[in-house]
Amino acid sequence: MDERVREHARTLVDWSARIEAGDDVVVQVDEGAHDLAVAVAAHLGTRGANLLSTYSSAELRRAYLRAHDGAFDADPEYELAMYERADSVLILKGSTNTAGTADVPSERRQAHSKARRAIREARLHTDWVSTQHPTRAMAQQAGMAYEAYEDFVYDATLRDWEALAEEQAQLKELLDAGDTVRIVTDGTDLTMSIEGRTAVNSAASVAYDSHNLPSGEVFTAPEGTEGVVTFDVPMTIQGRRVRDVELTFEDGVVVDFAAEQGEAVIEEVLATDDGARRLGELGIGMNRGVDRVTDNILFDEKMGGTVHLALGRAYDACLPDGVAGNDSAVHEDLITTMGAGSRLEVDGDVVQEDGKFRWE
Amino acid sequence: MDERVREHARTLVDWSARIEAGDDVVVQVDEGAHDLAVAVAAHLGTRGANLLSTYSSAELRRAYLRAHDGAFDADPEYELAMYERADSVLILKGSTNTAGTADVPSERRQAHSKARRAIREARLHTDWVSTQHPTRAMAQQAGMAYEAYEDFVYDATLRDWEALAEEQAQLKELLDAGDTVRIVTDGTDLTMSIEGRTAVNSAASVAYDSHNLPSGEVFTAPEGTEGVVTFDVPMTIQGRRVRDVELTFEDGVVVDFAAEQGEAVIEEVLATDDGARRLGELGIGMNRGVDRVTDNILFDEKMGGTVHLALGRAYDACLPDGVAGNDSAVHEDLITTMGAGSRLEVDGDVVQEDGKFRWE
Repeated sequence: MDERVREHARTLVDWSARIEAGDDVVVQVDEGAHDLAVAVAAHLGTRGANLLSTYSSAELRRAYLRAHDGAFDADPEYELAMYERADSVLILKGSTNTAGTADVPSERRQAHSKARRAIREARLHTDWVSTQHPTRAMAQQAGMAYEAYEDFVYDATLRDWEALAEEQAQLKELLDAGDTVRIVTDGTDLTMSIEGRTAVNSAASVAYDSHNLPSGEVFTAPEGTEGVVTFDVPMTIQGRRVRDVELTFEDGVVVDFAAEQGEAVIEEVLATDDGARRLGELGIGMNRGVDRVTDNILFDEKMGGTVHLALGRAYDACLPDGVAGNDSAVHEDLITTMGAGSRLEVDGDVVQEDGKFRWE
Repeated sequence: MDERVREHARTLVDWSARIEAGDDVVVQVDEGAHDLAVAVAAHLGTRGANLLSTYSSAELRRAYLRAHDGAFDADPEYELAMYERADSVLILKGSTNTAGTADVPSERRQAHSKARRAIREARLHTDWVSTQHPTRAMAQQAGMAYEAYEDFVYDATLRDWEALAEEQAQLKELLDAGDTVRIVTDGTDLTMSIEGRTAVNSAASVAYDSHNLPSGEVFTAPEGTEGVVTFDVPMTIQGRRVRDVELTFEDGVVVDFAAEQGEAVIEEVLATDDGARRLGELGIGMNRGVDRVTDNILFDEKMGGTVHLALGRAYDACLPDGVAGNDSAVHEDLITTMGAGSRLEVDGDVVQEDGKFRWE
C-alpha cells in the first residue's frame, strides 16, 4: 500500500475527526475507496475506536432507486438509530464512475432525499468528515492521468494543517473585525456586508467546525451584496457543465444573470426559492496544494487564489446566536479566480492583491 | 449481468427471507459480492423494502483486529441498535481471498467475537439468511475453474425449493415419528436416539426455520450415540485441513478419535468443553444440485447422499419446549458419504440405501 494512503487515514482519524478510544465510528465506503478504508480501519483499531463500515455504492443506490415506486418510508428507524448513536461518520468518497446514477429520475432521487431528512440531520450532528480517495474515475473527471491525480489529491490533503490553520487565522481575524468586503477581478466588482458575522477558519478538522479533508478556506455569510461577479472556473452542477456565469446583484438579490454554458441550470437554481437568489456564503480558498481545477467541489473551492460564493443556504456557524441567515433548499458554490489585477479588500484595506495575501 | 444473479437475488429476497414492503433490511456485502448486492438492491426496491448496506470486508476486519489492543468495547450501542431494529439481515458472502484473515491472532478474533454477543443475538433474532456469490477465490478453494464454479453455485442455489420442501417433508415425518436412527456405511456403524425430537425441514427459507441459501437438508438433535463413524469428506476447520476423521461413541460421548490428517484440530475441538464431545446435530443432505465437495460448509453439508454430524451445540428448533439440548461453545460439522452399501434406518426400517431414499 502507498504510504500516502496510510498518512491520509491518520490525518482523517487524528487531525480531522479527532477520534478517541471508545468512539462509535461509522465509515462509509464508496465502491472505489477500499484501500483507504483498510488504512482507516487499521488506524481506528490503533485508537481503540469502534468500527461499523457501510457500503456506499452508487450502483446499489441506482438499482434500488430505479426499482422503487418512489413512495419511500420516512427515516427508517434502524438506520436513524445507528446515526443518532454514532460519534463520528467518516465519508470515504471514491467513485468508480461519476455518472453512475445518471439515469435515476431526479424526482425519485429527490423523494428519497426528502424521506431521509432526520437521518441526514442525525449524521450532521456527529463529528462527520468527508474525504476523497483517488480513483481512476475521479482522475478522468479531472482530465488527468491516474498517477498525476494521486499526486494532486495527496498534495492537497497531506498538508501541514496546523500551519495553515495559523495562516487562515489572520484572515479570519480581519473578516471578524471588518464590516464590508469588496472583490475586484476580471468581470467582477462586488461589495457585500459581513458586519456582525463570524468567519470559520476551515482547517480540515471538526475542532475548527470544518468537515472536509482537504479543506483550506475561510468562509463567512455575507448580505446586502451589490455589483457584478463573473465565475470563470468551469463546474458541473446537477450533472451539467456550467462556464463563465455572470450574476448582477442589487440590495443582496440577483437581478440579472448570464452564462457562456449551462445558463438553464443557473436559471433553475435561482428559481428554487427566494433564498436561492441571495448569497449564503463567501469563501476564500487558501489551500496552495490545490493548484488546478479538477471538477470536484471538495477541491476546487479550496484552491489558493480563488474566491467562491454560494447561492442559497448560509451556515449557522457564521451567524450570531439567534440570527437566522439566508435560508434555501440549495447551496450552490460558484468560483472565480483571483489572478493578475485582482483585489480583495476588507473595509477598504487590500488584504489580497494579484491572488497573493499581503502576508504571503 | 448474468441473469442467474438476478434470479439468485429474487430467490433470496422472496423465497428465503420473505421480504415485504416496509421491512428494514440490512444487506452485508462481502468484498466480492458487489454484483449480487446490486441485484438484491434492485429487488428490495421492487418490493418497497428499506435498504442499509454494510461492507463486510475481510481486509478491513484484518486491519482493524490486528491494530487493536484486544480490549474491545462490549456490543457498541450504535451497531446493536441497528440490528435490534432490523427485520432481516441478508449476508452476501463473496470472499476475494479465503485466507484474508489468516494472520489475525486467534485470541484477538475470539476476544472480538466475545465482545459482540448481544449484537450476534440481535442479528439471529431477525429473519437472517446467508448466501454465497461465486467468486474466483471460492472457485479456487473448490479447486474449480471460475465458470464451472458459477454453474455449480447456481445449480445448488436456483432449485425448485417448493418441490424439495415437499420431498424433505417425507423424511421429517419419518424422523419425527421415529425413536432411533442407525447409519451404516464404510467405517461407520452408529446408532442414536431421536425420541421426542423435532426434525427441521431446511428448505432455504425463514418460513422453514432455515437460514441458508442454498439449503436442502433435514436435521435433528440426537442423543445417546453409540458406535463408530468415519467422516470421509475432507474439510477445512479453523483454517486447517482435516481428512478421514474417525470417532467412537459410548453412551453419547466420544471415547476415542483418530484422523488421517488434522488430528490436532479434532483434539482441540473435543477439548473445548463437555458438550463438544457429544453430538448436537444429525443432518441429512438432500440437495442434488450439490454434486461435489467444494470445501465450503454452506454447500458440502447439503449434498444429496451425505450425512453430517456436528459436535457441540444443538439447535433449539429440534427440542421440545423447556428441554435443553446439548450445549457447547462449538458446533463443528463433519460429513460422511452414503455410497454403495450404505444404509440409513429409522427404527429398523431402511429409509435410504446406497445413497438413494426409498422414494427416489
